[in-house]
Amino acid sequence: MALKLYGAALSPCTSRVMTCLHEKEADFELVPIDLFAGEHKQLPFLAKNPFGQIPVLEDGDLSLFESRAISAYVAEKFKETGNDLIRHQSFKEAAEVKVWMEVESQHYHPAISPIIFQFFAAPLQGKPPDQAIIDENAAKLGKVLDVYEDKLGRTKYLAGDFYSLADLFHLSFTYYFMKTPCADLINERPHVKAWWEDISSRPAFQKVASAMNFGENGN
Amino acid sequence: MALKLYGAALSPCTSRVMTCLHEKEADFELVPIDLFAGEHKQLPFLAKNPFGQIPVLEDGDLSLFESRAISAYVAEKFKETGNDLIRHQSFKEAAEVKVWMEVESQHYHPAISPIIFQFFAAPLQGKPPDQAIIDENAAKLGKVLDVYEDKLGRTKYLAGDFYSLADLFHLSFTYYFMKTPCADLINERPHVKAWWEDISSRPAFQKVASAMNFGENGN
Repeated sequence: MALKLYGAALSPCTSRVMTCLHEKEADFELVPIDLFAGEHKQLPFLAKNPFGQIPVLEDGDLSLFESRAISAYVAEKFKETGNDLIRHQSFKEAAEVKVWMEVESQHYHPAISPIIFQFFAAPLQGKPPDQAIIDENAAKLGKVLDVYEDKLGRTKYLAGDFYSLADLFHLSFTYYFMKTPCADLINERPHVKAWWEDISSRPAFQKVASAMNFGENGN
Repeated sequence: MALKLYGAALSPCTSRVMTCLHEKEADFELVPIDLFAGEHKQLPFLAKNPFGQIPVLEDGDLSLFESRAISAYVAEKFKETGNDLIRHQSFKEAAEVKVWMEVESQHYHPAISPIIFQFFAAPLQGKPPDQAIIDENAAKLGKVLDVYEDKLGRTKYLAGDFYSLADLFHLSFTYYFMKTPCADLINERPHVKAWWEDISSRPAFQKVASAMNFGENGN
């Protein structure tokens, strides 16, 4: 039975999991949730995720939420197919993947997500982007990217010289970020820029990126 | 060779890892980092963690940071000793642990940590606690705890009827939280209160809790 992913193709958290599923060559069905109708904030969806957020993955009688947890589950379940995203044959490399997954979660995401919100979600609510919030978080993100620039000058990817779930976790939010005026934070750091161009050109991500339109350019 | 943990016994992130090490009955040496002297923001510590945060774990030539990543590493490395914190013999239970670890990271922590900061860290910087920040985050935390109350009415622990890393991750921040006037958010929810009393009385946590004094009561 194919996996069922409840979500929306334009959502960065849904596309994070879809990218992982493509990397693992796993069959799945995307069951669309209508965000604009608030379907994720109502039953029956709330029974799948009490926090009212997409995506949710159903694998038989197992129902999972939180995009990073789902991705880690997928990477483990399909560890023998596609690209090994968790380095399950090297205890040391697997530990480095864990560290840089947490760096995305605790440092990168808290800085980049308010910027994405201001540029893409606030306008949908009829509010102009709040420049003070953007500036404050751009400064935070810059400091995180200074660490990345140094690390990516020493290893090709974040956890080492191998692509992993730690890199993948950055893709969907950064994809939207690169459409904003803040994109220079990536472009002006040569190692970060090269890393971004590398990971964003992977076929598994290209498959989902084409559907990632938050209403910009009239699409 | 024993593991080396660089950190401070009063730090909730250090004590998170120490609790995990005690649960796994792992030998380790705590190498104190002087936070008040800013040792974590200077070399040589910055070479261990470029984000300038404690703790760091050294295991031979492997050096890891981020308390959740370190804990996951420890739980995996010592999976055969002590309490099984990741349910490595059940794929389904292991997946539930991953989900609720992420819930702590993405929902619980962002709400509780600003409250802890206001009550314990701000006064050390000569600032009174900011009641507006406390109120805003207490409201967020209350909503998260509503989900917990429902879940803990159906299973004894967050990921199921077994204690796991997902529960453990909550301990150290909640320990400080229970010393604040906001503690009622836990105490007024009977299932959450019973869960807290259960997990905080575990011997592995009791070993570290006695050293968790942030200067309150003159200690």
